[in-house]
Amino acid sequence: MSQPDHVTALSLRPVSPLDDDLEAYFQKCRDKLGMVPNVLTAYAFDQKKLRAFIAMYNDLMLGESGLSKLEREMIAVAVSSHNRCYYCLTAHGAAVRQYSGNPVLGEQIVMNYRAARLSKRQRAMLDFAVKLTSSPGSVEEGDRERLRRAGFTARDIWDIAAVVGFFNMSNRVASATDMRPNTVYHGQAR
Amino acid sequence: MSQPDHVTALSLRPVSPLDDDLEAYFQKCRDKLGMVPNVLTAYAFDQKKLRAFIAMYNDLMLGESGLSKLEREMIAVAVSSHNRCYYCLTAHGAAVRQYSGNPVLGEQIVMNYRAARLSKRQRAMLDFAVKLTSSPGSVEEGDRERLRRAGFTARDIWDIAAVVGFFNMSNRVASATDMRPNTVYHGQAR
Amino acid sequence: MSQPDHVTALSLRPVSPLDDDLEAYFQKCRDKLGMVPNVLTAYAFDQKKLRAFIAMYNDLMLGESGLSKLEREMIAVAVSSHNRCYYCLTAHGAAVRQYSGNPVLGEQIVMNYRAARLSKRQRAMLDFAVKLTSSPGSVEEGDRERLRRAGFTARDIWDIAAVVGFFNMSNRVASATDMRPNTVYHGQAR
Amino acid sequence: MSQPDHVTALSLRPVSPLDDDLEAYFQKCRDKLGMVPNVLTAYAFDQKKLRAFIAMYNDLMLGESGLSKLEREMIAVAVSSHNRCYYCLTAHGAAVRQYSGNPVLGEQIVMNYRAARLSKRQRAMLDFAVKLTSSPGSVEEGDRERLRRAGFTARDIWDIAAVVGFFNMSNRVASATDMRPNTVYHGQAR
Amino acid sequence: MSQPDHVTALSLRPVSPLDDDLEAYFQKCRDKLGMVPNVLTAYAFDQKKLRAFIAMYNDLMLGESGLSKLEREMIAVAVSSHNRCYYCLTAHGAAVRQYSGNPVLGEQIVMNYRAARLSKRQRAMLDFAVKLTSSPGSVEEGDRERLRRAGFTARDIWDIAAVVGFFNMSNRVASATDMRPNTVYHGQAR
Amino acid sequence: MSQPDHVTALSLRPVSPLDDDLEAYFQKCRDKLGMVPNVLTAYAFDQKKLRAFIAMYNDLMLGESGLSKLEREMIAVAVSSHNRCYYCLTAHGAAVRQYSGNPVLGEQIVMNYRAARLSKRQRAMLDFAVKLTSSPGSVEEGDRERLRRAGFTARDIWDIAAVVGFFNMSNRVASATDMRPNTVYHGQAR
Repeated sequence: MSQPDHVTALSLRPVSPLDDDLEAYFQKCRDKLGMVPNVLTAYAFDQKKLRAFIAMYNDLMLGESGLSKLEREMIAVAVSSHNRCYYCLTAHGAAVRQYSGNPVLGEQIVMNYRAARLSKRQRAMLDFAVKLTSSPGSVEEGDRERLRRAGFTARDIWDIAAVVGFFNMSNRVASATDMRPNTVYHGQAR
Repeated sequence: MSQPDHVTALSLRPVSPLDDDLEAYFQKCRDKLGMVPNVLTAYAFDQKKLRAFIAMYNDLMLGESGLSKLEREMIAVAVSSHNRCYYCLTAHGAAVRQYSGNPVLGEQIVMNYRAARLSKRQRAMLDFAVKLTSSPGSVEEGDRERLRRAGFTARDIWDIAAVVGFFNMSNRVASATDMRPNTVYHGQAR
Repeated sequence: MSQPDHVTALSLRPVSPLDDDLEAYFQKCRDKLGMVPNVLTAYAFDQKKLRAFIAMYNDLMLGESGLSKLEREMIAVAVSSHNRCYYCLTAHGAAVRQYSGNPVLGEQIVMNYRAARLSKRQRAMLDFAVKLTSSPGSVEEGDRERLRRAGFTARDIWDIAAVVGFFNMSNRVASATDMRPNTVYHGQAR
Repeated sequence: MSQPDHVTALSLRPVSPLDDDLEAYFQKCRDKLGMVPNVLTAYAFDQKKLRAFIAMYNDLMLGESGLSKLEREMIAVAVSSHNRCYYCLTAHGAAVRQYSGNPVLGEQIVMNYRAARLSKRQRAMLDFAVKLTSSPGSVEEGDRERLRRAGFTARDIWDIAAVVGFFNMSNRVASATDMRPNTVYHGQAR
Repeated sequence: MSQPDHVTALSLRPVSPLDDDLEAYFQKCRDKLGMVPNVLTAYAFDQKKLRAFIAMYNDLMLGESGLSKLEREMIAVAVSSHNRCYYCLTAHGAAVRQYSGNPVLGEQIVMNYRAARLSKRQRAMLDFAVKLTSSPGSVEEGDRERLRRAGFTARDIWDIAAVVGFFNMSNRVASATDMRPNTVYHGQAR
Repeated sequence: MSQPDHVTALSLRPVSPLDDDLEAYFQKCRDKLGMVPNVLTAYAFDQKKLRAFIAMYNDLMLGESGLSKLEREMIAVAVSSHNRCYYCLTAHGAAVRQYSGNPVLGEQIVMNYRAARLSKRQRAMLDFAVKLTSSPGSVEEGDRERLRRAGFTARDIWDIAAVVGFFNMSNRVASATDMRPNTVYHGQAR
C-alpha cells in the first residue's frame, strides 16, 4: 500500500523542456495551486494534445457562463461519481468544497448527489447531468424542457451538456490510464 | 415526419460573419466534403468553443497516431453505438464506410461490432473501447495488458482512450441538444 | 475480413431437394426478392420447422392487421436494435427503407428510434415494443392503456405484442447461430 | 383478490365454434390434461394464429430432438424466470415437476436455476439459455463452443436456441396481455 | 441430482450441546414447525450470532407492527424474488401460502409480484420494497410520500424499511453460503 | 442548503428516558466518540429494536473474527459505495481513515475500491463483497473458492458474508428513512 504512485500506468514521459507558453502555464499552476495537476503532467507527453485539453477545459470551467463555477464543479463531481472516477472525484470534490465553503456538500455529491439539500435549479441540473451520463440515448425534448422550467437558457443548457460531456471524456481517459490525483487534494477545504 | 429539421433543439445562432480563420475552415469543409458538418455549425454560436472543438478533433482523428484513421473511426462508431447517438453514428458510420471501402463493415459496427470479422488487434481495441464506455470505473491493469498483448504501445493505448473519451463527450453533447446530421451522410459510400 | 460468409455457424445443411411446396416458395422468393432470405435457408435443414416459421412469419408480417406493414417492420427494427441483432437489423432495416420510401427513417430506427420524427401513435407503439423487449415482467395495465389512448384496439395490441415477441425469438435464433444476412440487403433503398 | 380472473386483459373472444381440427385438438387437451391451456384459448380469436402457434410449439417441445422433453421444459422455465413471466413459470414449472418427478427441481429453476444440482451438460445448457435471453447481442462462437464441449451437436444447439427464442416470444405475448394460467397448474406434481 | 444436501457450503458445525435457552428454542421449533429451520442450524456454530439473529428476526417478523404478519412475509418474498434467493423464497413463500391461505398468492409473489391482485396499500408497499432493494440510493421523499398516501404511518414505513433491509441481509448470507432450505417447505400449504 | 437537519425523515421520537442499560451505552458513546451516532438515535424510538441492532452490530464489527476491524470497515464502505448510502459512507469512511491511519485509503474505497492499492487478500475480499451486493443470486462455489485461495477460512467467509449482509440492510434502512450522519464524521482523520 506504500509504493510510490505513478501519474498514469502508461510509460509516456512529459516533453522536457516544455515550450515557453506551457512552461509558463505550469508555473502559474505551481504559484496559484501549489502544484501542477497530474492531468496536465499526463497530457504533457504531447504538447499539442496538452494545449487542446487546456483550451477546452479553461473555456468550459473558467470561461463566461450562466452557470457559476461552483455549479460547473458540481456537475463534474456528479458525473464522476456516476462513473466512479477516482482522479476526478478527488480533484473536483476538492473544488466543490473550496468554491462552496461547504465541505459536507462536496462529500455529498461524491457519495450521492440526491443526499444534498439542493435548490430546485441545481437539482434539475444534476438530474439532467446524471441522466445524460447514464443513458445519453434516452435524453429528449422533455428533459430539456425540465431545464427550461428550472430557469436555464438555451446557452445554459449547452453549457450543462458540454460540462457533462467533458467529464465523461476525462473520466474515461483517467480510468483507462489509471491516472492518480495529486495527494494534496485530499486534505483541501475539509 | 416532414418538418424541416433543425441543427440542434437549442436556439443558438452561429456568429456571423465568422472570423477569417474559421470562415476559411468552413469553406475548406464545403470544398472537400460538400458541406459544413452540422456539429461545427452547432458550435459556431461561440468561436472560442468552436476553435477548441476543432483543435481537439483534428488532433485526435487526423493527427499522427499508431492507430489508422479507419481504426479511430471504428472506435467512434462502436462507442456511439453503445450510446445510441444518432448524429455520430450517421456521420462516423459514413466515415468507416469510406475509409474501409467496405459498406458492410460500417453497418456492422453501427449495429453490433461483434458481428464484424475483425482482426485480433481490432477486436481487442473495440472490446476495450466498449468496456471503457459502458463501465469506465471497472477498467484496470488487466484491460491495458490485453491491449499490450494485441500489439498496442503505451501511446496507442492513450490514443484509444482519448478517442473513446472524445466520443463519449460528443455523443452526450449531440444527444443533449438533439443535434441532427447532414442528410448527405446517409447515402455516402453505400 | 474477406472470408466467404456462412449462413449460420452451425453445420446444418438444407434438405435437398425440398418438397414441392417449399421449393415453390423459395422460387417465389427468388422471383420477387432476387434471393432466398438466409433465415429460410437456415431453417431448411428441417422442413417442418421451416413450414412453421414461414406460417407464423407470413401471418404476422403480411396478414391482415390494424398495423400497416411498415409499422410491423418498424417494430421489428426497434426490437432488433435493442437486442443488437445484426441479421434482423440488416434485413428489416431494408424493409423499413423500402416500405416508407424514407431511407433516413430506416437508419434512425436502427440507431435510436427516439431520434425519428414519429407520429404519437407510432411513438407509443415503439415505446411499448421496447419496454416489452427490455423488461417484459414490468409491463402492466398502464402500458396497455397508453396504447389504447393512442388509438390502438385490443386486436392491434395483440398484434404489437405478437410482432415484438416474434422478433425477440428471431433475434435470439439469429444471434445464437451467427446467422448472416444476404449482402444484397445493405444497398437496398438507400 | 377474489375477482374472477380473465384469460387475457384484451377483449378478444374465441371463435365459436372452432373448425373441426381445432375443436378436436381442444378436446384432446381436455381429455389428456383436464383443461384447455389458457394460452390456446387466448390465441383462439384467430384460427390461423392459433394453428401457427400450435404447429411451432408442438414441433419444438414435443418433436424429435437431442434434448429430452424435460430439458426443453427446463429451458422454458429458466428463460421465463429471467423474464419473470407468471403464465409461463406456472405452466412450465408444473411440466418440469411432472417430467422430472422432482418437485424441488421445478421450484429451483423457477427461483434460481443456479441453486439446482445440475449435470454439467444441463448447467451449460441453462447458462447458454439465460445468456441468450439476457444479452443476445453478446453471444458468440465461444458460447457455442462451450455447448459443443458439453456434448451438444449442431442440431442440439439449434434446438436450444429455438426453445430459448420461443419462450422469449411467449413470455412477451403473455406479459403484454396479462395472460393468466389455468389455476390447476399450481397444485400439480407437488 | 440425488446427493444428500448440506445446510451450507461452509464447514461450520453447530455448537453441541447448545445453551439451555437455545436448546429450548430449537425444541419449540420442532414442536411447532416440525423442524428446526436450516437458517438457525447454520447460525448455531456461534451462539452469540444465533441469539442476535433470533432477536432481530422475531422482533421484526413476529413483534407488534402496523403491518400484518402476512404483509411482512409478502415483503420478504418480493425482496427475495428480486435477489433470487433460493433459501428465502422457499421458506417465506411457504409462509405467504400459510398466512394467506392462498397458495396462488405465494406463487405469484415468488414469480412476479406485479402479477398478484393486490390492494393499493399492498401494491404500494411492495413497489417501495422492490425499489429499495434494487436501487436504494435513489429512494427519496417522494417514495415515502407515496407510502403515506397509501395509509402507512411513520412507524409503518420504518417497519417496511426494516423488513426490506433484513431480507437484503439474509438473502446475501444465504447466497454467500449456499444455504439450503428444509425440504418440507416445498409441499406446505399448496 | 442551511435548514437544520433531522436524524431521519420519519417523525419517530426516541424513548425518553431510555432504560438504564441503553442510557449507559449512549453515555459510553458520548465519552468515547464525542457523540451518539445518529443511527442509534434513529433506532431509539423502540428499545427492543435498538438492543437487537446494537447486539448484532457489536458482534459483527467489534467481536472476534479472522477479519481485522479495519477489514470489516473496508467491507462496510465498499458495500455502501455500491449502494450509494450517504449515512454509511460518511460514518464508515471515517472509520476506515481512523483504523488505517490512511486518509487516502478511506477516500478510495468511498469512490472506487478498485483504485486502492490492496493486498491480494483484501482485493479478493472486496471483490466478493461487491459481487454479493450487486448480484447475490449469481454467487456460487467458484466465488467461495476464490476466497479460500486468498487464505480465508470457512469462518472468515461467514464473517465476510455477514458484514456484507449487515450493510446491505443498514444501507437500506438509512436510505429509506433519509438518515443523516453526525456532521463530526466529515472532518475526522483527514
